[in-house]
Amino acid sequence: MSNNLPSYLTISQGINTDLIAAIETLKPDKIAVLVDENTRKYCLPHLHQPVDVQIEIQSGEKYKTLDTCTQIWERLTESGFTRKSLLINLGGGVIGDMGGFAAATFKRGMPFINIPTTLLSQVDASIGGKLGIDFNGLKNHVGLFQDPARVLIYPGFLKTLPQRELKSGFAEVIKHALISNTGQWEYLLNNSFESMDWNEIIPKSIGLKNEVVQKDPKENGLRKILNYGHTIGHVMETYFLKSSSPLLHGEAIALGMVKENEIAEKLGLISQSEVEEIQNYLERIYDFPKKLPGFNELIEFLVQDKKNDREGLRFSLLTKVGSCTYDVQVEQSILKQVLK
Amino acid sequence: MSNNLPSYLTISQGINTDLIAAIETLKPDKIAVLVDENTRKYCLPHLHQPVDVQIEIQSGEKYKTLDTCTQIWERLTESGFTRKSLLINLGGGVIGDMGGFAAATFKRGMPFINIPTTLLSQVDASIGGKLGIDFNGLKNHVGLFQDPARVLIYPGFLKTLPQRELKSGFAEVIKHALISNTGQWEYLLNNSFESMDWNEIIPKSIGLKNEVVQKDPKENGLRKILNYGHTIGHVMETYFLKSSSPLLHGEAIALGMVKENEIAEKLGLISQSEVEEIQNYLERIYDFPKKLPGFNELIEFLVQDKKNDREGLRFSLLTKVGSCTYDVQVEQSILKQVLK
Repeated sequence: MSNNLPSYLTISQGINTDLIAAIETLKPDKIAVLVDENTRKYCLPHLHQPVDVQIEIQSGEKYKTLDTCTQIWERLTESGFTRKSLLINLGGGVIGDMGGFAAATFKRGMPFINIPTTLLSQVDASIGGKLGIDFNGLKNHVGLFQDPARVLIYPGFLKTLPQRELKSGFAEVIKHALISNTGQWEYLLNNSFESMDWNEIIPKSIGLKNEVVQKDPKENGLRKILNYGHTIGHVMETYFLKSSSPLLHGEAIALGMVKENEIAEKLGLISQSEVEEIQNYLERIYDFPKKLPGFNELIEFLVQDKKNDREGLRFSLLTKVGSCTYDVQVEQSILKQVLK
Repeated sequence: MSNNLPSYLTISQGINTDLIAAIETLKPDKIAVLVDENTRKYCLPHLHQPVDVQIEIQSGEKYKTLDTCTQIWERLTESGFTRKSLLINLGGGVIGDMGGFAAATFKRGMPFINIPTTLLSQVDASIGGKLGIDFNGLKNHVGLFQDPARVLIYPGFLKTLPQRELKSGFAEVIKHALISNTGQWEYLLNNSFESMDWNEIIPKSIGLKNEVVQKDPKENGLRKILNYGHTIGHVMETYFLKSSSPLLHGEAIALGMVKENEIAEKLGLISQSEVEEIQNYLERIYDFPKKLPGFNELIEFLVQDKKNDREGLRFSLLTKVGSCTYDVQVEQSILKQVLK
């Protein structure tokens, strides 16, 4: 077990005990739980804590909007919630990010507890305090940084997940290894996805991310390495969102890692052999779309990336396994070669 | 001059010099200015700083909405703004609160400079970091706490204000004196509104507020005394918003101070003579509506007040001139006597 976990985070073996303890500390005057149709069905029955209000939204990134957020604000308002009330976000990244944003801005801030239920949200959204919603199709375009009052991670919830969802979350586990820890990458290479022990992998992966976040909480510099795979990944995700077969977030990120490695290779930052090793590994786990969009189809989304400045498009790129650099300016001519 | 001003705030005698210095520190990649039709006409010409984008919204509390905020987010997005860009909010409380909220949540936060142009926003909204918008008619219902990168207060802008607006802002000057400084109250009593020297009054009044905010930035306790006059004031403001003759914010707060003093008197917290002294003073300055709404018309708004908890309605009430208590639970029976 890694010891480098944020103080607000608990890897929980008994979700009810830990939730009750958290609530006893906060002493809320009212409690709401935010769920989607999946977590209402598969996760909510595990919680024995009574709540005053149950707010259900539709699952999926396409509902991570200002409209849905407005519905949450309205339910909290109608139900007489105050700044001393509590919102429990029970779900994946959409629920945690959007429920967190809704709570953090309700009457200028009420406390919230995140209980991430997917591998993706457990190893990624669970720490770092990024809250927000998509806006006009742009991912996390409106949001803020704020840590939850408490994050409870219960690996038991992973049993409720379809295999494809689990693999999607695994992309962030892979990313954390690739950007910061050679040993963890070796471990992943030498052990099959199916044999992973989540009780061990999750705290290890969170610990790797947390080391980075602690050094740069507001993403002024180093934290940008966590965006490895995400610049191309996000635009692929946005692009396929409108198609008949949307990508899951982690699938898009895995694809982003492949493509961004190609950029790094063209810039002479990383060796061909490592690029191939990573690509082969990812292709064993993920079924990437056969036909990918090209530069012309992606550029309108790329320019909206939050990491950009007036100097142009910026990427976080691997220099070798276990090491990542950031703020690399990439010419459009390079992008045109990789995205075709 | 009070020395107790926040480090991000400058009382400016030369707005252009101070603005240029602030921009040189921030080094933004793009600059937008947010104005309404009044500040575009009367204040913007005073600024010599070139900007990339001018965003104009309609003046007035009724436009402090999610819809207007969405328009600001859209303009920033279309104009290719990044986290390293800058929004200058040139206007009163609505512009500062909403522009600040829009900037603080755009791509999880871009810097903003507030240049408050009304007396109200100069002495009140200029410090304390309260950002937000109204939501379904509820004041500042969605928002957060965050300090601007810089606040530049240029008393010269007050010359552009109608007398009624100036008096509205003066209500907060009065409030700051009443809740925390007997000497300042004596000064106000003994000098006419018309004879006020704003270059002296503004920093003094901000200093009084700042002393309170510094002790309790997130309004967990003491800061609530700044809400004196605002519980009844806000519901009066909300009520009259829909009428043919809306109250200005400060007018509503002045009325709120009168009514909340009556509550304090009924609870035996403050002497009748002080209540009368304050009421006489306020009635000399403000023309209150002849017909006021009663308890039944106001209760639906009162229960949404952000200071409430499950114990009921909470007020910040004067105990004497220069001293204020908070979290006072007030029975509805008392409210019915005062609001009739």
